[in-house]
Amino acid sequence: MSLILTFLGKGGTGRTTVAIAAAKKLASQGKRVLLATQDTSPAFGMLLGATLTPEPQELSPNLFGIQFQTSLLLERSWEEVKNLEAQYLRMPLLKEVYGQELGVLPGMDSALALNALREYDKSGKYDAIVYDGIGDKDTLRMLGMPEILSWYVRRFQNIFSNSDLGRTLSPFLQPIASAVLNINLTPENLPQGKEASSLLEEGKQAIANPNRVAAYLVTTGDPSSIATAKYLWGSAQQVGLTVGGVILNQAILPDTVVAEIAESLEQVYETFDRESAITNTVTAEFAPLKISSIPSREGEDWQALIDAMPDFRTTAMVPKPTEIDLTARQVKLFLPGFDKKQVKLTQNGPEVTVEAGDQRHNIELPPQLSGQSVKGAKFQNSYLILSF
Amino acid sequence: MSLILTFLGKGGTGRTTVAIAAAKKLASQGKRVLLATQDTSPAFGMLLGATLTPEPQELSPNLFGIQFQTSLLLERSWEEVKNLEAQYLRMPLLKEVYGQELGVLPGMDSALALNALREYDKSGKYDAIVYDGIGDKDTLRMLGMPEILSWYVRRFQNIFSNSDLGRTLSPFLQPIASAVLNINLTPENLPQGKEASSLLEEGKQAIANPNRVAAYLVTTGDPSSIATAKYLWGSAQQVGLTVGGVILNQAILPDTVVAEIAESLEQVYETFDRESAITNTVTAEFAPLKISSIPSREGEDWQALIDAMPDFRTTAMVPKPTEIDLTARQVKLFLPGFDKKQVKLTQNGPEVTVEAGDQRHNIELPPQLSGQSVKGAKFQNSYLILSF
Repeated sequence: MSLILTFLGKGGTGRTTVAIAAAKKLASQGKRVLLATQDTSPAFGMLLGATLTPEPQELSPNLFGIQFQTSLLLERSWEEVKNLEAQYLRMPLLKEVYGQELGVLPGMDSALALNALREYDKSGKYDAIVYDGIGDKDTLRMLGMPEILSWYVRRFQNIFSNSDLGRTLSPFLQPIASAVLNINLTPENLPQGKEASSLLEEGKQAIANPNRVAAYLVTTGDPSSIATAKYLWGSAQQVGLTVGGVILNQAILPDTVVAEIAESLEQVYETFDRESAITNTVTAEFAPLKISSIPSREGEDWQALIDAMPDFRTTAMVPKPTEIDLTARQVKLFLPGFDKKQVKLTQNGPEVTVEAGDQRHNIELPPQLSGQSVKGAKFQNSYLILSF
Repeated sequence: MSLILTFLGKGGTGRTTVAIAAAKKLASQGKRVLLATQDTSPAFGMLLGATLTPEPQELSPNLFGIQFQTSLLLERSWEEVKNLEAQYLRMPLLKEVYGQELGVLPGMDSALALNALREYDKSGKYDAIVYDGIGDKDTLRMLGMPEILSWYVRRFQNIFSNSDLGRTLSPFLQPIASAVLNINLTPENLPQGKEASSLLEEGKQAIANPNRVAAYLVTTGDPSSIATAKYLWGSAQQVGLTVGGVILNQAILPDTVVAEIAESLEQVYETFDRESAITNTVTAEFAPLKISSIPSREGEDWQALIDAMPDFRTTAMVPKPTEIDLTARQVKLFLPGFDKKQVKLTQNGPEVTVEAGDQRHNIELPPQLSGQSVKGAKFQNSYLILSF
C-alpha cells in the first residue's frame, strides 16, 4: 500500500512543479516513489527534464516516472473485458473489436487513471505515488467515483429489484442467462458484480483515509488563486478527501496584482512587505491548515523547493470530512470555503443529499439514523451540522 | 445558429481572460453573445467582475453570461430521461429516482456541457457562444464526443446484429419489448435511437465546420506554454476541430524564463528585444496560423485587450483537419506539432485508425475507399498522407 498524494489549485500556480518537488523529496527520504502524470503534452517532460513513458521507468534512485496514456490504458482494460466475456459468455461478441480501435470518450481519462493508480498501489512496489492530475474539480470527480458509483449501484439495484419491471423481467432473464451465458443468474453466480462492488468499497475507504490518500492545495498570493484553492478545499470534503495543507508559491507576481493585494489589505504599495502580507492572508484564509511557503524555482536547481515542501509522512491532523456522533444523533460535515447559501440539503431519496460546489454527496447513514428525517440543520464554523 | 468559439492552451496562460475579451469584442460589434464557463469556482466571477448564474443573464448590452452547473444540467436531463421512459415503458422504473439525488461522475461535465451548448446554439438567441472550458485535452474530448460516440454506435450495432448473440437474443427481446414497452422492437419503432444518431451526425458536422465551431490557441512566450499549445493544435485536428489562430499573451514573464528564451535563441539577455523575439518564435512555430499579440490587462480596463483580439468573424483560411482526394485515392490528415514517430496508424477494424496525442480517430472513409487497405503512408509538411 502506498501513500497517494495529489495537488489541487488554479491552473498556472505551479501544481506540476510542486508535484515533482514532492516526489523528489520523498525519494530523497528513501521512499520508493512513483510520479504519475495525466499530462501527455511535452510540458511535463520539459519541466522534469526527462521524457516519461507509459510504463514506469526509474528517473533517479527511488524515483520512478510514468505518463498515463488513456488510449493505452483503454486497450488493456478492453483485453480484460474480453477475457471476462470469454469466461462467462458462450458466444463471445467483443472478440472482434480491437482495443487499438477504441476512441477515448470524456470520463475515460479519469476512470482509467483511477484504476491504474489502484493497480500501482496494490503492486506493493511503491511507498508513495504522486499523482499530477488536472488538479481541479476534475481530480475530485475522479476521486469521488468510488463513492458516487456505489451510490448509483445501491440505488438502482434497490429500485430494480422492487419494481414491476424487475419482477416482469425475471422470467425472461433466466432463459437468456442460461442460453447465452454459461451460468444461472443468481446473485452467488455473479462474481464480477460482487468484485466490482468490493472494489468500490475499497476505493471509498482508501480515499477517506488520510494515511492512504491526501491532497494539498497549491496557490500563489493572487486573490483568484486563493479563492480557487479555497473552493477546492471545500469541494474535496464532498468526496471524502482530506486536504493535508497548503503550499504557497511565492512566485513573482505582476506589479498590478501586488498593488491589488496591498490595496485590499489597506496598505501602501511602496512600504508593503509582500511576502509576509501574503503569508498572513493565506494563513488566515486556510486555518487550521499548515502553510508551506515555497520559493520560485531557479533554473535546474530543485533543492530549495524540495527543502520547502511539507512533511507528507506525518498524518494530517486536520478536520475529517464527515464525523458521526451517535449519542448526540448528529452528523457533522466539514465544508470550509462555503457559506450557508452555497450548501443545499435535500432528502428526496432514501439518503440525505448535500449539494455544494457543483457536487452531490449522498450520505450513507449508520443503521441507527438511516431512513430518518433530518430534524435540524445549521452551519457553524465551516461545519454543516445535521440533527436526527 | 451561433459561432461557437473556444480557447485552448496551458493553464495560467490567460485563456479565461481571452475568452472574456473575445466575448466583449463580439458584443461591441453588435453580436448577441453568450459567454459560458465551466468554472464553478469564484475565480471566473472575480475576473469578470460579475457573478454568473446557471441561467443566462445579461451582463452588458448584447453580452449574456452563464455558468454551467453540472449538477443542475444533470437534474434537467434526468427529467427528460424520465419523460421518455414514461412514454415508452408501461411500468416506469425511474420515476422514483430524483434528479436532486444524482451525483456527478467523470465525463458528465463534458457531456452535459456539450448538450447545453447545442441547445443554446439551437435556441437562435445568440450569434456567438464563447465557451470557457477546461481548455486543454478535456475540451477536445468533449468536442470529439459526437465523432467517437457515433463510431461506437456504428461498430457495436454492426457486431451485435451480425453475431450469434444478436441472433440468439432476438426471440427473447421481442416478448420483453411487447411485455414491458408498449412497442414492437423494430428499427422504425425506435425514434430515440434514430434521434440520437442524427444528433451525433449534426454534432459532427457542426464541429467540422469552422464557421460553426472554432478554437484559438492561447500561449505566453514561455517555451512550455508554446509546446503545450502546439500539442493541442495537432490534437484538435484529431477531433476535426479547426484552429483559427494563435493569441500570444505578452504577459510579463519571470526574468529566469526570459533568460532561458534569450539563451535558446542564442541572444544576449541584456540587449534582447523580448517582445519581438517571442513574436518571431511563435510565428515560426505556428505557421501558417495568424498570431495576435495581446498586452497584459491593466486593472479593470479591457479595451486594449479587446482591440488586440483577432477578427473572429472571418472564416479561418487555415488547413482543414481532413482532406480526401478521390482521384488520387488519397486521404490527407493535417497533424501539426506531431512527428512521424508520434503518429500510429492501424487497420485492425473495418476503418483506418490514426492515433496521436493520446487520441484515436477512426476515419470514416467514402464508399470508394471504404474497406480497402492502406497501400502507403507518409508524413510530409505536417500532413499524414494515406494512399489507397
